Amino acid sequence: MNTIGDLFRLTTFGESHGPAIGGVIDGCPSGIKIDFDFIDKELQRRTTAQAESASQRVEPDRVEWLSGLLDGVTLGTPIAFIVRNEDARSEDYEAMREVFRPSHADFTYQQKYGIRDWRGGGRASARTTVPVVVAGAIAKQILLQQNIQIKARVLEIGGESDPERIEELLLRCRKGDDSVGGIASCSITGLPAGLGEPMFDKFQACLAKAMFSIPAVKGFEYGDGFKMARMLGSQANDAFGTTPDGRIRPMTNHSGGIQGGITNGEEVFFNVAFKPIPTIGHGNRHDVCALPRALVIVEALAALTVMSFKS
Amino acid sequence: MNTIGDLFRLTTFGESHGPAIGGVIDGCPSGIKIDFDFIDKELQRRTTAQAESASQRVEPDRVEWLSGLLDGVTLGTPIAFIVRNEDARSEDYEAMREVFRPSHADFTYQQKYGIRDWRGGGRASARTTVPVVVAGAIAKQILLQQNIQIKARVLEIGGESDPERIEELLLRCRKGDDSVGGIASCSITGLPAGLGEPMFDKFQACLAKAMFSIPAVKGFEYGDGFKMARMLGSQANDAFGTTPDGRIRPMTNHSGGIQGGITNGEEVFFNVAFKPIPTIGHGNRHDVCALPRALVIVEALAALTVMSFKS
Amino acid sequence: MNTIGDLFRLTTFGESHGPAIGGVIDGCPSGIKIDFDFIDKELQRRTTAQAESASQRVEPDRVEWLSGLLDGVTLGTPIAFIVRNEDARSEDYEAMREVFRPSHADFTYQQKYGIRDWRGGGRASARTTVPVVVAGAIAKQILLQQNIQIKARVLEIGGESDPERIEELLLRCRKGDDSVGGIASCSITGLPAGLGEPMFDKFQACLAKAMFSIPAVKGFEYGDGFKMARMLGSQANDAFGTTPDGRIRPMTNHSGGIQGGITNGEEVFFNVAFKPIPTIGHGNRHDVCALPRALVIVEALAALTVMSFKS
Amino acid sequence: MNTIGDLFRLTTFGESHGPAIGGVIDGCPSGIKIDFDFIDKELQRRTTAQAESASQRVEPDRVEWLSGLLDGVTLGTPIAFIVRNEDARSEDYEAMREVFRPSHADFTYQQKYGIRDWRGGGRASARTTVPVVVAGAIAKQILLQQNIQIKARVLEIGGESDPERIEELLLRCRKGDDSVGGIASCSITGLPAGLGEPMFDKFQACLAKAMFSIPAVKGFEYGDGFKMARMLGSQANDAFGTTPDGRIRPMTNHSGGIQGGITNGEEVFFNVAFKPIPTIGHGNRHDVCALPRALVIVEALAALTVMSFKS
Repeated sequence: MNTIGDLFRLTTFGESHGPAIGGVIDGCPSGIKIDFDFIDKELQRRTTAQAESASQRVEPDRVEWLSGLLDGVTLGTPIAFIVRNEDARSEDYEAMREVFRPSHADFTYQQKYGIRDWRGGGRASARTTVPVVVAGAIAKQILLQQNIQIKARVLEIGGESDPERIEELLLRCRKGDDSVGGIASCSITGLPAGLGEPMFDKFQACLAKAMFSIPAVKGFEYGDGFKMARMLGSQANDAFGTTPDGRIRPMTNHSGGIQGGITNGEEVFFNVAFKPIPTIGHGNRHDVCALPRALVIVEALAALTVMSFKS
Repeated sequence: MNTIGDLFRLTTFGESHGPAIGGVIDGCPSGIKIDFDFIDKELQRRTTAQAESASQRVEPDRVEWLSGLLDGVTLGTPIAFIVRNEDARSEDYEAMREVFRPSHADFTYQQKYGIRDWRGGGRASARTTVPVVVAGAIAKQILLQQNIQIKARVLEIGGESDPERIEELLLRCRKGDDSVGGIASCSITGLPAGLGEPMFDKFQACLAKAMFSIPAVKGFEYGDGFKMARMLGSQANDAFGTTPDGRIRPMTNHSGGIQGGITNGEEVFFNVAFKPIPTIGHGNRHDVCALPRALVIVEALAALTVMSFKS
Repeated sequence: MNTIGDLFRLTTFGESHGPAIGGVIDGCPSGIKIDFDFIDKELQRRTTAQAESASQRVEPDRVEWLSGLLDGVTLGTPIAFIVRNEDARSEDYEAMREVFRPSHADFTYQQKYGIRDWRGGGRASARTTVPVVVAGAIAKQILLQQNIQIKARVLEIGGESDPERIEELLLRCRKGDDSVGGIASCSITGLPAGLGEPMFDKFQACLAKAMFSIPAVKGFEYGDGFKMARMLGSQANDAFGTTPDGRIRPMTNHSGGIQGGITNGEEVFFNVAFKPIPTIGHGNRHDVCALPRALVIVEALAALTVMSFKS
Repeated sequence: MNTIGDLFRLTTFGESHGPAIGGVIDGCPSGIKIDFDFIDKELQRRTTAQAESASQRVEPDRVEWLSGLLDGVTLGTPIAFIVRNEDARSEDYEAMREVFRPSHADFTYQQKYGIRDWRGGGRASARTTVPVVVAGAIAKQILLQQNIQIKARVLEIGGESDPERIEELLLRCRKGDDSVGGIASCSITGLPAGLGEPMFDKFQACLAKAMFSIPAVKGFEYGDGFKMARMLGSQANDAFGTTPDGRIRPMTNHSGGIQGGITNGEEVFFNVAFKPIPTIGHGNRHDVCALPRALVIVEALAALTVMSFKS
């Protein structure tokens, strides 16, 4: 329910304006020296990517480590960590108590639980991605030691892919007190062949599930994705060939590095569509586009997905 | 691994040319009178949708029920069933033994397991969707009693949505010994509000994961999907209003019936992108488009997803 | 791994001398008003049952609640809580760094992880039962509202069941700088019929698994237990009869309230055997018998087990 | 629910008098050459151990393999198998339709499901252990390649451990149309150190859970078990020493090869208490003691437990 992964498993908890948010990582290999600076930098990517536009609460997000480490080295036991919600001004949200904000989760939480933490989105707040970023940063460190690299970038915002036009669009949104969606593109390189389970735990299936845990995500495609729905087989097929050093590998990569649900050793790449942030019309007290800040979350979830497979 | 769902759980098994394929449904409520005719009809949708184009092996797909039923009524114990692979002409596939077919799973299975059933795709064959259709048909029967309906249709094939132009395109593919992709659109109506778990088991996340278990699927979007990446917040938001009978509900449904990972009682709708069938150039001994036959699989996986949530 | 239960699920974390120990409860129903005093009392049972003999570190065990609650009422989201390890004098344990203490987990942790937190037993410390007691106390509150009561008692210590002789034995152990084992007996009343899954998740199987999570437990039996291995069928069978008000029920309860893995509505009772505490010979700086303090843990684990079943 | 294990996972299905019983093994390593003769021999141990006393239905129990194998070698995909219930004479059980037999599961199934297969115990029949024996036999083959051996024996029957006295007791039971319980003792040798998860998935916890899936089991103890409840710490502790070749290991094994939930490389041994078979008084149409026939089941479940741990 609030857990992702199996062999490498993250359980998260916390409401936006409760005492703290945090997570428990179970199944982390022992003997890993944690790079805490890297984790802090990843957390900063989540908050400051759009510093100029973000009038949103910017907290230091100091991670407090509670267990699973001895002198900064993993013990193999659960790694628990929390981040305090120091800057919580619940009174700012008093108006939310009685209102279902458009396209937020206020209504559905009320329906499901008969009660909700109305302060700043509660459990449905984007703030709940903080533990994902922390755990993802640990996963990335471990993967990097195996030369597996994960990199997300902005593919387009509001349909624009030119940086200058994007900047212009964001400015217009800010002035108009509006927000805008976009698409992130992510690449995983260095993966060994053989990750993924054939039937229901296919590599792409677990990756998709992970991405849809991000509240704003409305679409996911991998390889040539939706474009393949318009292709002929003769255009879409990845024929195998032999490399100069005699290795068999596909000569093209429309498939996106996965066949039959199992990685084939090629680059895995995928796109993730974000809807516009629903909080608008409050006199600029909001971010106009979540996408730049979300890249680190996309990477984190990709890293957690890779770690959850037995290689 | 070969299991989908939790409270209502399907485990499948079987290779395309092994003795049988089948499944075990665990967690099915007791006391349900099974409509076996409906199951047979659903299986026929999987095989005959494109009878004219399908030169593929068409088997009767007779389901043999092994357990969990007494006089056609569910006992609450595991329902096991098999379908024999009666028409398996392995010799036809002898050539596959040494070859990795383009964009098939031959290569990745060999990499992962060091061994593979080379006859007709083995475990990676589309034939492995048969148990999904059977279990989905049972799930649909149960859901229908709760007025939950699931209906998939062809949205486009090869970029065309006009039936006549689709027919023309398919004819061209058949003549050219080629195949073509497409997009399925699916709708779930009658869902109660409150299905889905907030963080990692969001309704859309489980739905996406299920769809990506279909071998040919390359993309998934729900609600307004990828289009929302080009929208402004002011265009994308679903404001709440009050119905004539005083019920609060969203006045539009860009969200596709899900907010914060939880159903809100509106229609859930989503699109699934299929790549072209990779088997081409064999003198028409293949289907040119999997999509029409796949609609029943999309519906089945949607039904299994709904059943896996506690209402 | 560090998680127990499914629908009602506890994940624990923490080393004896790390910053904190704690837990995350997922799947707790919403709208439950938590009785924090009761939780504190349960925690006291864990520490003070043998105040006179316990020279062990006695900490206040103040629970800090981090999430899942609003004004003391459950939100349905994960309930995270921690207890700080305030009194940790690691230097007392410096000698443990290089030594494998007899019948402790020092050796096996070193073998499994290649690293261990040598301070006070680390993750294998009895202190890790604190989160179990906290979560169990919440489970008990919920069960009590359904009139389900769980009560454990000392059946025997060192083979003695007479309180006076037990007291005498404990005194002898204290003087001899030794420890002694014992048997706890536990009863669950008010359970509805129908809890438990037929094959591998039988009620007794999950109960046994839970009890063996207590480090000192070496045996578990339910109903007439090991005694039934010496009975004839004619002595052991529980024949059904009809109560004055016409209800069918078993007239005896050798079975201990479970048949075929499913509760039958009768009292469930079971015994749990504890080995002596392995820490001895340190000049009385230890507890001589864990059993009295463990009763609350036995009850907590029984409560968590009951909660994990769908009724 | 009807699944045991995680990485190596068995799902079983089938009613005693339905068309077939069977199982699906998921997670079996690829490339294992199956010894089918060994599996048949194990199945025979389940049926013929007490040929003279067993007037019970003795079926050939021919295993039909449905998937996951190519030329008798495992593919890494799910291995499904069934055994037909050829000899099912349901009419013999017609009287059961309306009756709750003492200490059987008839009553609890009816309570839980509102329906039951009344023919010969249905899902609760001892016949449902057949798939366990089959899967266990495969697990044992794999373990034997790693020099891990599992061996169960009769420790006592009706309190007697002398073979002659046991034979006498069984004869008396047969004459008296009665049954009798007993205790099985099982040993696992060759296990590496490091198997088991510290907190809730301790090696002994999973072992206990597996044993309690056997319908007749009422008690489980490992190492010195219940006897340790009467020991002093000074008697029970396993001090570490150094072997002639310089390896550190415990000098005694009261612990039964497990410390802190993790195997320490010593022999794991445990006892399992069986209640008498509840079916009595039918003019000798029954087995008088299940224990000899159950040894192979105990071994099978121990093997499945070992396989479920990542080494």
